[in-house]
Amino acid sequence: MKQAQIQLSIDDLPSKWYNIIPDLPGGLPSPKEPGDGESRLQALGRRMIGECLKQEVSDARWIDIPEGVRELYIQAGRPRPLYRAYRLEQRLGLKKVRLYYKREDLSPTGSHKVNTALAQAYYAAKEGKTVLVTETGAGQWGTALAYAASLMGLSTVVFWVRAVYDWKLERRTLMEMYGAKVHASPSNQTSFGRKMLSGDANHPGSLGIAVSEGLEYVDGSADRVYCLGSVLNHVLIHQSIIGLEAIKQFEQVDDSPDLVVGCLGGGSNFGGIALPFIGEVLAGKRECEFLAAQSEAAPNLVKGEYRYDFGDTAGHTPLLMMYTLGHETVMHPIKSDGLRYHAAAPIISALRHSGHVRAVALPRDEVSVFTAAKMFLESEGWLIAGESAHAVRAAIDEAKAAEAKGEEKCILINISGHGFLDIAAYRDVLRLGS
Amino acid sequence: MKQAQIQLSIDDLPSKWYNIIPDLPGGLPSPKEPGDGESRLQALGRRMIGECLKQEVSDARWIDIPEGVRELYIQAGRPRPLYRAYRLEQRLGLKKVRLYYKREDLSPTGSHKVNTALAQAYYAAKEGKTVLVTETGAGQWGTALAYAASLMGLSTVVFWVRAVYDWKLERRTLMEMYGAKVHASPSNQTSFGRKMLSGDANHPGSLGIAVSEGLEYVDGSADRVYCLGSVLNHVLIHQSIIGLEAIKQFEQVDDSPDLVVGCLGGGSNFGGIALPFIGEVLAGKRECEFLAAQSEAAPNLVKGEYRYDFGDTAGHTPLLMMYTLGHETVMHPIKSDGLRYHAAAPIISALRHSGHVRAVALPRDEVSVFTAAKMFLESEGWLIAGESAHAVRAAIDEAKAAEAKGEEKCILINISGHGFLDIAAYRDVLRLGS
Repeated sequence: MKQAQIQLSIDDLPSKWYNIIPDLPGGLPSPKEPGDGESRLQALGRRMIGECLKQEVSDARWIDIPEGVRELYIQAGRPRPLYRAYRLEQRLGLKKVRLYYKREDLSPTGSHKVNTALAQAYYAAKEGKTVLVTETGAGQWGTALAYAASLMGLSTVVFWVRAVYDWKLERRTLMEMYGAKVHASPSNQTSFGRKMLSGDANHPGSLGIAVSEGLEYVDGSADRVYCLGSVLNHVLIHQSIIGLEAIKQFEQVDDSPDLVVGCLGGGSNFGGIALPFIGEVLAGKRECEFLAAQSEAAPNLVKGEYRYDFGDTAGHTPLLMMYTLGHETVMHPIKSDGLRYHAAAPIISALRHSGHVRAVALPRDEVSVFTAAKMFLESEGWLIAGESAHAVRAAIDEAKAAEAKGEEKCILINISGHGFLDIAAYRDVLRLGS
Repeated sequence: MKQAQIQLSIDDLPSKWYNIIPDLPGGLPSPKEPGDGESRLQALGRRMIGECLKQEVSDARWIDIPEGVRELYIQAGRPRPLYRAYRLEQRLGLKKVRLYYKREDLSPTGSHKVNTALAQAYYAAKEGKTVLVTETGAGQWGTALAYAASLMGLSTVVFWVRAVYDWKLERRTLMEMYGAKVHASPSNQTSFGRKMLSGDANHPGSLGIAVSEGLEYVDGSADRVYCLGSVLNHVLIHQSIIGLEAIKQFEQVDDSPDLVVGCLGGGSNFGGIALPFIGEVLAGKRECEFLAAQSEAAPNLVKGEYRYDFGDTAGHTPLLMMYTLGHETVMHPIKSDGLRYHAAAPIISALRHSGHVRAVALPRDEVSVFTAAKMFLESEGWLIAGESAHAVRAAIDEAKAAEAKGEEKCILINISGHGFLDIAAYRDVLRLGS
């Protein structure tokens, strides 16, 4: 019997997260102040969860996952299965290439974002905070945080770019069902938002404005704390649970990937699957390549420069050393909004710079991407998110190339999320139905 | 650590389905011809999958699950976890009542329907059929069949009641992505459909018309076969995988339910979770009660008569001995369409008649039902289907009643499906958002 699903026993759920920083060749360039007199490091630090701030600068290779967070992970369905994609291999006529995929799509809110949301909600509650504040663009992060807050008995306030808020009604309802207060940004909740609205009552907003509103809102009460869903080191540390599970699952079936592929916007799901494997590569314990699948709408690792830049459009964050398209770049709208970010996480950028990570940018019309996702659906049966479809497309291209060259190859794909709220995107991009 | 999730190892995936018929006290009343000269038994038998027809009348207690179907089950994510609802218990303030739930919502298409769809697609392929034909009302069955056909390399033709087809665009797109041809019924694919359309070009259709069209369509080619998604014995046999897994999972945690609750339209998910437990009750091996959660829109077990009736509105099926509201009853529309069926499966009806199954009908405005689902979401984190919400509501009511009486009780709930395509229903029923 060909057994596609590879479980991991709950007893084998990792008890520590992996922090790659101490293993990075040359270390990680420190954040910087832009030198305009305003200390953004202090300002951000003051608004963040204390434990997350500690992890952000930790040089410990392994960080204990608190018992309470492991309990939440198990509640959220972890460990998640790894699959051998026998059916997709057959569909593609692969004889020498093996494909595997990791199932973050089984998450309660539909994406890997819960892995850090649960940790952050847990720490926030321990530190006496009761209100989690954030901004969201695509909406996956806001949903995950609202979910995590709900489980911890906290509340969430989400500032959501108005242009997206207005049409993603299903996702907004879901956040609200988890108890989140969701404000279209600019909002009348902050003086900055009110100022924007006074200029234009129908202001479409931007991620930069939403961040500004969130930060101002946090300052309004000591109960509030700001949570971040990607890019920063502590987020990637929490996401390492994905790759750590996958390593154990590969051991169970006595196989090992030669290439790990994940989609990349800011870098949290890519980092989550890749960093534990990269750590073993850096330690000389394994050979493996790593490929970030991006959109041409935001090809930060492909076309960006490696330099200091702000993490947000408005310049409220400290300067981070990243591959960036420039924090003020206007990016073309795509269905897979989760990949529209101007820069890649500092850790991923450093690994790109040292040659450990390569990247590809896929056409922004997303036709080839959703076509790959449909092939995945037809053969493997699972409906995946548009973002994840980028990883599947890139992996299929790599598989075909290896097969054509007669190379034996084992490829691991991270499926970052499910597509039940993306069906309209499939329909539009692939021009399905009448 | 409170470990909510109870896995079942793939090695422990059941290798046989359970057939309760040989254990039914007094056996199961046979189907009958209505006596109008037309042999519906023969007509239906001729159009069905041969192996399913054999199982339909089998008196074997255990039926081997073919290796190929077990492979498909594992592909589809089985075994599915059982959860102890610690968080919901806490939310409800339960001290003496324990709640568990089984996770059929983790299915690729979002419902338990895949359990029989995969078996039917497997058998159909073995018998040389290439086109699976069916009707669908709510759409869950059509999606599951399209999925199963896709995995087996078969195609699907779905006749979908036009009134539903017109507004469930997401679900229709999903079926089509799995390769199904979906026809609004009445359609121009059959002479019966054309006749209906000639009378009214915008005929809204009905389940009876869709069945008639499907049956006529099957007759058009020997490649085609008719598949049924509920009510019949072989469907309940395939669904027994749910309860068989749950029994093993309860053994692992050394607990045992006193009450099993499932929602019930025709009876396939209820039968799936309950029948293996009922079999052990009938054999004197366990004590347990069983509760079917229905809608007042179609309270067949609560208000129906136990008598012979047709399975479809138009009278194309043989007569089956069932609790029925009458096959021509017009049922009030509800969001949880999957519960709108005029009769309960013959096996469930027999067990209701013998006093082994009780039933409750919940208000058709669905406010109390979706309120329970929202409470489930807030505490357990999972978004469930409206149908499943009926089971959760009924279980919560039972739990509170037991707690009030100081009774110790263990309750198992079947979560038949997820709610990612039901978010609009939550919004409408609970009047969420602005």
